[in-house]
Amino acid sequence: MVTFSEISPSEFFYRNRDLAGFTNPARALYMAVRELVENSLDASELAGMLPDVYVRIVADGSTGDSPEPRAYRLTVADNGPGVDPHHVPRAFGKVFYGSKYVLRQSRGMFGMGGTMAVLYGQITTNKAVKVTTSTDGKSRHIFEMLIDIGENKPIILRRDTEEAGGKTGTRVDIMLEGDFTRSAQKINEYFKQTALVGSYANLTFVDPIGRISTFERATEALPPPPKETLPHPYGVDVEAFKRMVKLNEEKTMVRFMTTHFHRIGERTAQKFLAFAGVEPKLAPEKLTNEQVVRVVDALQRFQEFLPPDSSCLSPVGEQILQTGIIKELEPEFSTVVMRPPSSYSGFPFLVEVGLAYGGKALEPGRKLLRFANRIPLLYDESSDVSFKVLNEEIDWRRYHVPDEAPVAVITHICSTKVPYKTVGKEYIADRPEIEAEIRNAVREALRRLSLYLSKKGSMEAVQRKMNIYAKYLPLIARFSTDLAGQKRLPKYKQLIADERDRETAADEAVEGTSAPLEAEQVMVQVDGKNVVNKKHEQAKIEDYS
Amino acid sequence: MVTFSEISPSEFFYRNRDLAGFTNPARALYMAVRELVENSLDASELAGMLPDVYVRIVADGSTGDSPEPRAYRLTVADNGPGVDPHHVPRAFGKVFYGSKYVLRQSRGMFGMGGTMAVLYGQITTNKAVKVTTSTDGKSRHIFEMLIDIGENKPIILRRDTEEAGGKTGTRVDIMLEGDFTRSAQKINEYFKQTALVGSYANLTFVDPIGRISTFERATEALPPPPKETLPHPYGVDVEAFKRMVKLNEEKTMVRFMTTHFHRIGERTAQKFLAFAGVEPKLAPEKLTNEQVVRVVDALQRFQEFLPPDSSCLSPVGEQILQTGIIKELEPEFSTVVMRPPSSYSGFPFLVEVGLAYGGKALEPGRKLLRFANRIPLLYDESSDVSFKVLNEEIDWRRYHVPDEAPVAVITHICSTKVPYKTVGKEYIADRPEIEAEIRNAVREALRRLSLYLSKKGSMEAVQRKMNIYAKYLPLIARFSTDLAGQKRLPKYKQLIADERDRETAADEAVEGTSAPLEAEQVMVQVDGKNVVNKKHEQAKIEDYS
Repeated sequence: MVTFSEISPSEFFYRNRDLAGFTNPARALYMAVRELVENSLDASELAGMLPDVYVRIVADGSTGDSPEPRAYRLTVADNGPGVDPHHVPRAFGKVFYGSKYVLRQSRGMFGMGGTMAVLYGQITTNKAVKVTTSTDGKSRHIFEMLIDIGENKPIILRRDTEEAGGKTGTRVDIMLEGDFTRSAQKINEYFKQTALVGSYANLTFVDPIGRISTFERATEALPPPPKETLPHPYGVDVEAFKRMVKLNEEKTMVRFMTTHFHRIGERTAQKFLAFAGVEPKLAPEKLTNEQVVRVVDALQRFQEFLPPDSSCLSPVGEQILQTGIIKELEPEFSTVVMRPPSSYSGFPFLVEVGLAYGGKALEPGRKLLRFANRIPLLYDESSDVSFKVLNEEIDWRRYHVPDEAPVAVITHICSTKVPYKTVGKEYIADRPEIEAEIRNAVREALRRLSLYLSKKGSMEAVQRKMNIYAKYLPLIARFSTDLAGQKRLPKYKQLIADERDRETAADEAVEGTSAPLEAEQVMVQVDGKNVVNKKHEQAKIEDYS
Repeated sequence: MVTFSEISPSEFFYRNRDLAGFTNPARALYMAVRELVENSLDASELAGMLPDVYVRIVADGSTGDSPEPRAYRLTVADNGPGVDPHHVPRAFGKVFYGSKYVLRQSRGMFGMGGTMAVLYGQITTNKAVKVTTSTDGKSRHIFEMLIDIGENKPIILRRDTEEAGGKTGTRVDIMLEGDFTRSAQKINEYFKQTALVGSYANLTFVDPIGRISTFERATEALPPPPKETLPHPYGVDVEAFKRMVKLNEEKTMVRFMTTHFHRIGERTAQKFLAFAGVEPKLAPEKLTNEQVVRVVDALQRFQEFLPPDSSCLSPVGEQILQTGIIKELEPEFSTVVMRPPSSYSGFPFLVEVGLAYGGKALEPGRKLLRFANRIPLLYDESSDVSFKVLNEEIDWRRYHVPDEAPVAVITHICSTKVPYKTVGKEYIADRPEIEAEIRNAVREALRRLSLYLSKKGSMEAVQRKMNIYAKYLPLIARFSTDLAGQKRLPKYKQLIADERDRETAADEAVEGTSAPLEAEQVMVQVDGKNVVNKKHEQAKIEDYS
């Protein structure tokens, strides 16, 4: 018998929690930490506040020394702007209700991470979530609630208000089943990598054993808050266009175009409407269905729209990324490549790639660190577009980088819409535009590494020659002096130095590099002390725009 | 500014169609075909009808010779039981409304594939879907409709009824943007693999160029229709338990347990309730919240529940799978391993593995064909649990199967709930229980292959020896005859045959195989004609239950 039935969004994700990354107790604990931390960071950055985030996982006392998986209390507290108490119940107790449904770069993308963590906690422990929040620093609102899964709505068990003592921010306490033993490594890696791209945040993590990890703020320079943008004409389909018309208050098509689309001025609007065959003075609500289809079709074909403006994007930036790489990976060589903004389906995006080579921290073999809108992505690497580029599209031999070379590649994609393939935000779809940008950036970074390695190689050859000179010239000089019946040795030391400069200069000319390597650095290294990685080599960062 | 808003399920998937596999025009066309074909097959099998499915993709005439991507009309028609007209609008026009929200093995899992195809068509072409269906063969109902995305409900544009002429079944016509050039290979592969595990179906596919592919029914034996089951106690959480109590009409806890759970009889119910510390005569609705938590906790810890019954599972079966492999892959050797039913989180599942080696159709290297509930899975192979087992957990050298050997491994997982990691049903999560079953099955299949190869190797050695005998014995026989002054040659041919039998028998004894290889086969091959793959080697299929 076929029986049809309807289920609520909560019910759907309750039944299919694998889809949101809450696959097993280990991964669920990791996901819950991650989703709540990301909500905190997003809120602080959007409000222009330097984030302090405190995370604690405590084993539930009432269950004693249970084996894993077991109940944990997860607390995530921040000093951010707080959540308007009016929205709290639905923001944490209703799937598909949230603040992420706008065109703006943010870590959250689906507006459901917090609710999923609450839902998972409720399913596994039957305990309520506790949300404490203050937006003004005067009063603090406390909610204890469950989710009515069948109805997809919050059930408020307790609601209180107390003195906030001048502090704003949000604190979430969830009781959930987890497996810390099996997720500890990922959770630690998550904090480490979050610090790598967010050195303006204070992060504190207290694990169930009481060990404290702190990642202290290294800079007070908060990136500018991400801005909301209008949709780019290339990304608008019939459905979206009709909704814009419905909400529109402008009287003419020209005004409608200039106020509802990204980077369309009056001149472009006039040109476009002529191209689409629509009267500029027409009232938008008078468009027939057929005209709507024609206009939307023309939106895709018109060649003169400006590309999406990147001012709504907030990349990590060369300086912060370079600092993070040096601090966390201590490489012998590193470089950062910033690609110019681009777009896919009308959404602006930007790719940054860092590359680190050698040093003491990196192990032999290629390592990939993936980020999207400042989130580290730690699972399902092999399905990610960056993995595909690195392993299927780059001919590493061309850059003389053997497979076992100690190399780390860091990719960061920021966009108002990151094309994740799962709600759990594990990996990014291989949209051709994004793939091409990553490929170009990685190639450029590898060219720089290749140049460094080849220069290092020839520097070493020069140095070997110089070492031979340095070994025999004093003897030759002494013999010659003796043979000539002289007392004073000639200035052979200067001879060696001059020869080295000459050889190095010749090498420079041949390589034609734009990032000259200082001979002194190589000297330090070939002296056998191998300390060149202390004096860090920063390749010149070029602007490709 | 933070603005909170609510979106509908349609809106969510409209915004995030990557999540459901509708990533780009090529993949979307593939997904639309697949979702509608799977609905047809599910419906027919559930009704116990032999499926005839007709699929046609036609370029939209009105757009002429447009380049890809372009508008296509996709038609999928079946001879199945039809859809009750009362349900048609919501089944195709409302996300989270469907017939798949029960515990039953089916291709569909999320109950949204058909609606996603309709939604995608509407977004990209602004055309209505047309659904024609008849359940009784008398009257046929025609619907033309769009989806109100913001409200997640169907908008019916036309509704008609006509004579059905005795034919039941459903036909869906969708206009959508697609890229056939880039999806042709996957779509063809999809039909080929669907035929491999569903030889009881007639499949016809007409592509945009007018080429017809037919996969004809090879057997009238329809697998028994999948049955709906009660939840197994291990898979029930507090939320699910509370709902069962709410819907319950039984008066006592004992009756409640026996009527609402899978394989709990009265004796087990009594034992369990004693274990959980609940009075057997207690009325279920009288359970306190605390008692509910205690009972659910006990459900996970009680050791005496029977494992899930596999009668609700419908595997492909040894015979059909073996037939499919021989027909589609024409291998030199093949074998099928059926594992006994098992369970994860209370959901029964079963793993079948086929292995094919050599022959003309297989190319060098390992090939993996993945199936779940009879669906071929063609994307994101490297994230799948079967890929993980084959590439990370199997030591192929142990089985003397080199990397370049022409081997195909077919894995089929059937379950009332397949743990897909995406709504697009591309790959399966690595639940440990499933991983272990696949590993065991693959190992057993490889043991059989290894045995075959080693026997083939020693057979070849025997044959080489025999060839030498065969070459020199006639000469020796002639010389001996001459020397002895005789005229008649001795019966040396029989000598060779006897010796071969002796060697083969010795070899058998050493190998102790249960699947004797016929010497004749090897003869055929070492004759240099290499035709042994015509006479197919079927290893004995053992039962592991």
